[in-house]
Amino acid sequence: MDRIRTIAFDADDTLWVNEPFFREAEATFCGLLEDYLPHHSVHRELFSTEIANLPLYGYGIKAFTLSMVETILRITDGKAPGHIVDRALQIGKEMLQKPVELLAGVEETLERLGPDYRLVLATKGDLLDQERKLEKSGLAGYFHHIEVMSDKQTGNYERLIAHLDCRPEQFMMVGNSVKSDIIPVLRLGGYAVHVPFHTTWVHEEATYEEANPRFLEARSISEIFDLLP
Amino acid sequence: MDRIRTIAFDADDTLWVNEPFFREAEATFCGLLEDYLPHHSVHRELFSTEIANLPLYGYGIKAFTLSMVETILRITDGKAPGHIVDRALQIGKEMLQKPVELLAGVEETLERLGPDYRLVLATKGDLLDQERKLEKSGLAGYFHHIEVMSDKQTGNYERLIAHLDCRPEQFMMVGNSVKSDIIPVLRLGGYAVHVPFHTTWVHEEATYEEANPRFLEARSISEIFDLLP
Repeated sequence: MDRIRTIAFDADDTLWVNEPFFREAEATFCGLLEDYLPHHSVHRELFSTEIANLPLYGYGIKAFTLSMVETILRITDGKAPGHIVDRALQIGKEMLQKPVELLAGVEETLERLGPDYRLVLATKGDLLDQERKLEKSGLAGYFHHIEVMSDKQTGNYERLIAHLDCRPEQFMMVGNSVKSDIIPVLRLGGYAVHVPFHTTWVHEEATYEEANPRFLEARSISEIFDLLP
Repeated sequence: MDRIRTIAFDADDTLWVNEPFFREAEATFCGLLEDYLPHHSVHRELFSTEIANLPLYGYGIKAFTLSMVETILRITDGKAPGHIVDRALQIGKEMLQKPVELLAGVEETLERLGPDYRLVLATKGDLLDQERKLEKSGLAGYFHHIEVMSDKQTGNYERLIAHLDCRPEQFMMVGNSVKSDIIPVLRLGGYAVHVPFHTTWVHEEATYEEANPRFLEARSISEIFDLLP
């Protein structure tokens, strides 16, 4: 194993709880429209709106809120009473104000890694929202660099690694999404530690089947110490 | 004058046209609601929604679109027909897809400065939208570093300058907003060149009255050469 110098962490559902807030919001949203369509159909309509809007809106809560509004208009054929649209806006605002709930072992792991590695936060979504969560988390001081990315594809990681002035084989990414945190980094020749979270957005679901010594799996973030050389 | 090593450029209305698209969108939006309120009142309501949402939503087109929807609900007491809300969403999507129109002299100025200075893009707004505009602009290659900031206050510039590993007195910011591009940089001891644009959002309006040899004014971006030592 090469000497790893830089360890980058995904934020949502790797350092703190995120996806369950979206699930909760989706459930509330489906309830709002149950006079028009059953929950599972509302859910499917919302998902298809989100995917269609992804290239234009990107990730994050503002994009999600706009997609809720658009879905209401489509499902109700523009006849939804205003209070339903208003409630969708409120759901979005409530999400933006959620407290940050750190996952188990996160702070101790960062504290223990800090002296030996350059730690980076690499997350995607709304810039302001991610900055606010980082501030609320109290973890900002552990990171040498914070990167909020518009997407997490190979090209985005390539630019990040170049910017950090390190080689991919000295770079390790830790995250819960095989699609966004693992596959693109392995493709570049870096190390990737998958720490699964119990809830994953369908759009992030992926599997990695190749035999690759740089693909590591941990049940929790603290297990990273057993995987490092 | 100290030797300036890094020149940072604001993007919207400094490198390319932006604010006129918001003005155009606001005018269309006021027209949508003219059965409820006169244009100037709709305009005032939208502005107050935007300012109230700024801490939560930040800057950019998605925030603007969400504020349009909220304003419709408030003005019409939740009774707006769906097509009005739908049209507001479309206005937002159209804004996100506008072509990028470079201002006069921009490309030549960057090209001429490139060999002698480290050029940086320092902009605020939606991350994905700013990245997309930069790509469409064809200017990405001129910049050593791209920084999309959630806000442009003194603290944000302080972090940027530290990240660029330079001293404020070696840093020059070029932009159209006295409030966002000039005042915070002067406060840190950097140089700031104000290149006014004909249209400014009310929220960005400010004046700088102090005598400060580091505050420079240009009528167009090309005049920067007369101001550099």
